[in-house]
Amino acid sequence: MAEVVEFWFEYASTYSHIAAHRIEGLAAQRGLSVLWRPFMLAPIFNAQGWRDSPFNIYPAKGANMWRDMERECARFGLAFRRPSRFPRNGLSAARITLAAEDEAWTPAFVKAVYQANFVHDQEIGEPEVLRALLAQAGCPAPEAAFEAGEQEEIKQRLRARGEEAAARGLYGAPSVLVGEELFWGADRLEQALDWACAG
Amino acid sequence: MAEVVEFWFEYASTYSHIAAHRIEGLAAQRGLSVLWRPFMLAPIFNAQGWRDSPFNIYPAKGANMWRDMERECARFGLAFRRPSRFPRNGLSAARITLAAEDEAWTPAFVKAVYQANFVHDQEIGEPEVLRALLAQAGCPAPEAAFEAGEQEEIKQRLRARGEEAAARGLYGAPSVLVGEELFWGADRLEQALDWACAG
Repeated sequence: MAEVVEFWFEYASTYSHIAAHRIEGLAAQRGLSVLWRPFMLAPIFNAQGWRDSPFNIYPAKGANMWRDMERECARFGLAFRRPSRFPRNGLSAARITLAAEDEAWTPAFVKAVYQANFVHDQEIGEPEVLRALLAQAGCPAPEAAFEAGEQEEIKQRLRARGEEAAARGLYGAPSVLVGEELFWGADRLEQALDWACAG
Repeated sequence: MAEVVEFWFEYASTYSHIAAHRIEGLAAQRGLSVLWRPFMLAPIFNAQGWRDSPFNIYPAKGANMWRDMERECARFGLAFRRPSRFPRNGLSAARITLAAEDEAWTPAFVKAVYQANFVHDQEIGEPEVLRALLAQAGCPAPEAAFEAGEQEEIKQRLRARGEEAAARGLYGAPSVLVGEELFWGADRLEQALDWACAG
């Protein structure tokens, strides 16, 4: 019986904003635990020949995504404002998250980063923004948490995480893995968690 | 108050199979009418630089789509079998549908074509298959309906339909337009129809 689901997210991903804010509640309703799995989409997109977000490469798709984000966030009662820059570089935030994966404050930090990017239009790649978000999320030692993300071992682990993502079939974010059953997109959260319950 | 929604579909599209089978029931529950709008994705995909389905171009995305189709069809109680050929050319079927857009049997024909492609693994580009599907759908004069789709005027109208799709922001199928509000994907049927009710 699967009782744990892996939530794979990328800080630049718009729909990960929705999923990051919804998954805890949906998991709690079902008695499931969530493993937070930050990863970078860039290596996966690069391997597909994309040097930018597909929402920028394909303008019609991008235009509808922004409209859809407004509608979907309204539907779920989530705040949202289209950022003045997209995509923002979530590399430092992903490293900090990976270094703190088992901390109690990590989910709060993840959501704070998404709020910063997709509600408050902040530069989530900037160290001072990240330090403030760590403090805001209840991290007891923001400076140490920031520094932990800068360690070479963490950089290597995040690269390995990206290789693991590709090897397990991920091609976008957010994604949920229940064992090796892959569910792609914020639209499949309920199905992924129901699958975990039925497993 | 919008009481009509436009359902834009492409016969090669897997998720259009799901949407084509669900939209009438969802619309009826809300007292809405559906306008069936066949179109071809190829010109839109070609303009994006794609010469094949993105599910073939990007194998990881394709692999998960097939798995997701199995899961989603099971969830909705729809039959589904991965076709031995993908994508199949839906040009003739789209022309027949366009020529018969106002006929009472047209929705039954649309669904029959999807069943042929995605359940019975039939070659929906073949005239004899299409004639049989027309008869099966209750078309009183299958041969005439087939021939109607071969007229030059219909060919031109289908090309114009594709241009209309691009001009109105469509980039994939299925899509639902409620006025100029665009909803992309089988995952947005409920939202599109709810939007029509609230409009």
